[in-house]
Amino acid sequence: MSQDRHGERQQRLKQKVDERIEAAQLERGIVIVYTGNGKGKTTAAFGTVCRAIGHGKKAAVVQFIKGNWDNGERNILEPLGVPFHVMATGFTWETQNKQTDTQACLETWHNALQLLQDPQYDLVALDELTYMVSYHYLPISDVINALTLRPENQSVIITGRACHRELLDFADTVTEMRPVKHAFDAGIKAQKGIDW
Amino acid sequence: MSQDRHGERQQRLKQKVDERIEAAQLERGIVIVYTGNGKGKTTAAFGTVCRAIGHGKKAAVVQFIKGNWDNGERNILEPLGVPFHVMATGFTWETQNKQTDTQACLETWHNALQLLQDPQYDLVALDELTYMVSYHYLPISDVINALTLRPENQSVIITGRACHRELLDFADTVTEMRPVKHAFDAGIKAQKGIDW
Repeated sequence: MSQDRHGERQQRLKQKVDERIEAAQLERGIVIVYTGNGKGKTTAAFGTVCRAIGHGKKAAVVQFIKGNWDNGERNILEPLGVPFHVMATGFTWETQNKQTDTQACLETWHNALQLLQDPQYDLVALDELTYMVSYHYLPISDVINALTLRPENQSVIITGRACHRELLDFADTVTEMRPVKHAFDAGIKAQKGIDW
Repeated sequence: MSQDRHGERQQRLKQKVDERIEAAQLERGIVIVYTGNGKGKTTAAFGTVCRAIGHGKKAAVVQFIKGNWDNGERNILEPLGVPFHVMATGFTWETQNKQTDTQACLETWHNALQLLQDPQYDLVALDELTYMVSYHYLPISDVINALTLRPENQSVIITGRACHRELLDFADTVTEMRPVKHAFDAGIKAQKGIDW
């Protein structure tokens, strides 16, 4: 491509981005959903928490499903002042008891609710929340109500597969992580520090 | 759903996951690509870096496109021992000169190459690398060669839209971040600590 054509193309790109930035003037917290079956939902949430505290914002994490493994992100973010609330029972498919899972979910949701009412938090990450709704541990209306009533400048990130339609409708930004391929399927072992 | 049916379903889920974990026995570094037009590619890369160093792994970041703004993740990760190499010219659509952009790209690629030859790094994140290939600043063959020759246990994360077919074929894990909707389009301003 010639320098002229390259410059023109870049100019058009820049113009388009600038126009969109210009048009977007509302300042308020947003609800971001990372859903889909692909890798990267939880890591994108933690990346955003890392970004937020790097700008001096206050962030908190609630994890609704947690494996029985060491949590790398928590090791880094908690000492930097990010509170973590992790559901006590571990992976729901390890416990397999609807009653105790529901109980554990509601206790964790109680922690989430306190954060969603606290204007000092600029960002609240609700990791794997979607499962709590799809397993019927938590009514979708409770989630929508809490998001509606949260402080105006608070942003919320929700992750997990099979996000409820009402939550997708409510959210400001939704990304579907679509799996194209996964090392797992090529016989490569999940690795500490990469996959978990 | 009854407790029995719930337990059964969870048991099937657990079995399926266990089988896949059992089958995956190769231990080596992997190449992960986060591509697509949706939000969360760079944040997922930084989230993985955060996770890796939280497990005591050594990680490095190379950013091939960087806006003229403050970098929240860098503020957190660099003091924790993660080296950052950031392309000097900022966003390529700010500079719009193919010759100087190519030069800046190749200098940054030189830094990346050193990391891709250094077995002390468990994880190297090459943020926005895909654009360097699609803008013809960097030959795809150079990228594939460097990935092929890297230390066996090193994992690499590559982010950016429109990833080259050869790189998708080479990668072990590929996720396409598909935009479902974006706050931007609803007139909400991009926000420090969330969007950048």
